[in-house]
Order: sequence, then structure tokens, then C-alpha cells
Amino acid sequence: MATISAETDYIQPAVTADTALFSVRGGELVALTVRREREPFAGWWALPGDYIRAEEALDDCAARALAEQTGLDAIYLEQLYTFASHYPGRWGRVFNVAYFALVPFAAVSPRNDENIAWQALSRLPRLAFNHEDILASARRRLAAKIEYSALALGLLPEVFTLAEVQAVYEAIKGERLDKRNFRRALLALDQLEVTGEKRQSGAHRPARLYRLREPSNLGIIG
Amino acid sequence: MATISAETDYIQPAVTADTALFSVRGGELVALTVRREREPFAGWWALPGDYIRAEEALDDCAARALAEQTGLDAIYLEQLYTFASHYPGRWGRVFNVAYFALVPFAAVSPRNDENIAWQALSRLPRLAFNHEDILASARRRLAAKIEYSALALGLLPEVFTLAEVQAVYEAIKGERLDKRNFRRALLALDQLEVTGEKRQSGAHRPARLYRLREPSNLGIIG
Repeated sequence: MATISAETDYIQPAVTADTALFSVRGGELVALTVRREREPFAGWWALPGDYIRAEEALDDCAARALAEQTGLDAIYLEQLYTFASHYPGRWGRVFNVAYFALVPFAAVSPRNDENIAWQALSRLPRLAFNHEDILASARRRLAAKIEYSALALGLLPEVFTLAEVQAVYEAIKGERLDKRNFRRALLALDQLEVTGEKRQSGAHRPARLYRLREPSNLGIIG
Repeated sequence: MATISAETDYIQPAVTADTALFSVRGGELVALTVRREREPFAGWWALPGDYIRAEEALDDCAARALAEQTGLDAIYLEQLYTFASHYPGRWGRVFNVAYFALVPFAAVSPRNDENIAWQALSRLPRLAFNHEDILASARRRLAAKIEYSALALGLLPEVFTLAEVQAVYEAIKGERLDKRNFRRALLALDQLEVTGEKRQSGAHRPARLYRLREPSNLGIIG
């Protein structure tokens, strides 16, 4: 597909926008995938995405592909990184502009279709093209971003315990966190306030319930 | 330059890597620019950058253009954002993959050439193509990034006062900062340690001198 101009040695590649849409389901980080109908990689799972059309904006391309392929719209997608691939003799040069978002699982309903599925990052099948690399890079960015922002708090219910917040962070980072260090860093974000209520869970001491200080700043954000 | 495939409606655009290289000189944020010799935009200032070559990696393209056009190499460039432009009937579709870095002014020496210049962001000339937009976006990212990282501390001399740190932050952000809030946030980054020495400056009280806790983590970083 890539052609080389006769006048210069620069190339005319294909450009796609591809989306890593993350959520947490049952304590696990999951990403939305779609099964490809056509070659190349027919039958493989892939990230939602498409080639950019003439005059289409990159953000619009990512949103269009997600809507067409999964039925989801009105999700704020953030541009992540641009990957360059080279497929000699096949499609030539392809640039993937990757987008990502983190959404509350209950708040999004992809089209009910066996070719659309949330996949746990810990049990991911092989993905088409370079989409495994894109997804791994998006997860690293996500894990870094939740350290210094309130991003992950958008996944929580209206009131929650600090243990529930820790479980969300552990799902995203894919590792256990030290309870004391986690709580100190979390409270330093200054996004939570105590409700004054407590919740009993099993044989544990009742745990304080918290809520977000400014819920309007959160919600579905990338 | 862009052509539309006969088989599909996606396009084959041009892709460039362009670099916003920032530093602080005399209390001002500056960016490195090069004057274009050729059309289009002959004689205009622009960011260092070039079209990507066949099989070239994006990072390599940005580094090559910077080295060829300014003589600078061995600078760690971080990918920032990809911009899509459309120039109907001229060059068609162009994607600019923007890179950026923040470097200590004394540590980098571009080639001595009247067509290579550091420009103060506050007195920027018109730039070629969409490079003003790229530079403005890179500055916003830089200003956000110094809030939660030790990035800007790489611009400081071996020992320094907190007033000197504040001056660097104010230059990058382009605004005056409240001294008390700034110092509290800065010390919370946990990157500084007192040297035990003080420095007298004018009629002010002697100011404590600080140094970086782990200077090896900093230096020339993007």
C-alpha cells in the first residue's frame, strides 16, 4: 500500500486510529476487543479501529471506528501514542495512532454480539497486527497515570471503602499494593471525603465509607 | 502529495516527526527553531523536523532531523502528540508526530548558524505550517508535566535556592506562582535535600541551598 514518491524518498503510508478501551470487571482489568471478519487476520481479535478517511480528524476516526464496531459512543478517548509498523510487501508502512479510555464497567454496553468481547489482560488471546504492543503500552500509560490523577476513582460506586479503591488500583497495575503506602498516596490526591458512615463486611472491623469530593470532575474520562 | 487508493476510501498521507526543544534562558522559556531555506514557507522559522523515510522509526526520524538541522544529538526526545493537517490541493494530508524535550541551556550547543535560533515563547515569530499549534500544545504538556515530576529540576545548577527553582517553574508556566504553595508542592515531590549551606543575595536574608537527592535520575530528559 505504501508508495514512494518519485521526487523524494519519503513515503506515503496508511494511518489508522485504534482504541484501547479499559474497564475493571470482577477485580480484573479488561479491554474491549472485536473479532475481524475480513483478511488480513480474519477471525482474530483486534482493538476497535480503522483507517483514517480523507479529511477526517484523528479523534473522529477513533470515535467512528469504536461506534461502528462496538456500538459505543460518547466516550472521551485520549490520544496515547503513535506506533510505526512496516510490513514489507504486504501493506507497507502503517502508522497506528492509539487512543485509550478507562470506563466504569456498568456504564457502558457494547452491542450484544459474539464478535465483541471484553478480554481480561491476564488471559489475552493473540491480537491482530501490532495490537498486543499497543495494548501493553496503553496499560503502562494507564498504570502510570492513575498514580498522579483521580482517573481510577471514576470506576467506583457512589460510596466505597478504601479497600475497594485499592482493589481497583491493583487490578489496573496487575500487582498487590502495600496498604499503608497506598492509603497515604491516595489520600494525598485530596479527592476523597468521609461520609461518616461505615460498612461491615464479613468478620472484619466496619470500614469507613468515602465518596468523591468533586464527582462532577470524574465519570467517564480517559 | 496525498493520494486516494482506487480500492478504498482511505488515504495515503505524508508523515513527519517534528521537535519542540525547550530550555530556559535568562528566566524565559525558549524553543529551538530553524529557518527554512526552501519552499514551502521559505525564509520562515519552523521546528526542526522532516518527513519520515521508508522503514525509519519515528523516534529515529525526529532525532535525525534535529541532528541534521541543528547539530544536536544525544538528546532524549519524548513523543508528545500526533496532529493531522489537511492542505487541499497543496500537500494533501499531513500527519505531524510531535516530539519534545526540556534541556539545560548551558548543556546544549546548536550549530553556530544564523538560521538556527532559540526563540522566547513570549516573542515568537509566525512559524511555518502548523508549528505554532504544535509548540503551544507542547508547552501545555510541559507545564502540566512539571507539576507531578522532577522534570524541571534537570535545568538547575548543582546547588540552588528554592527561589531559583520557582523562577524555572514560572518561566515554563509563563505565570507568577504563590511562594508558599509552590514550596509545599515542590518539597512534596521529595527530590531535594538541604546542603547545610546558605547563600546571601542582595539585601535578602541568606537562603538555604539545596541539591537534588538523586541527580543521576535527571539531567537531559524529556
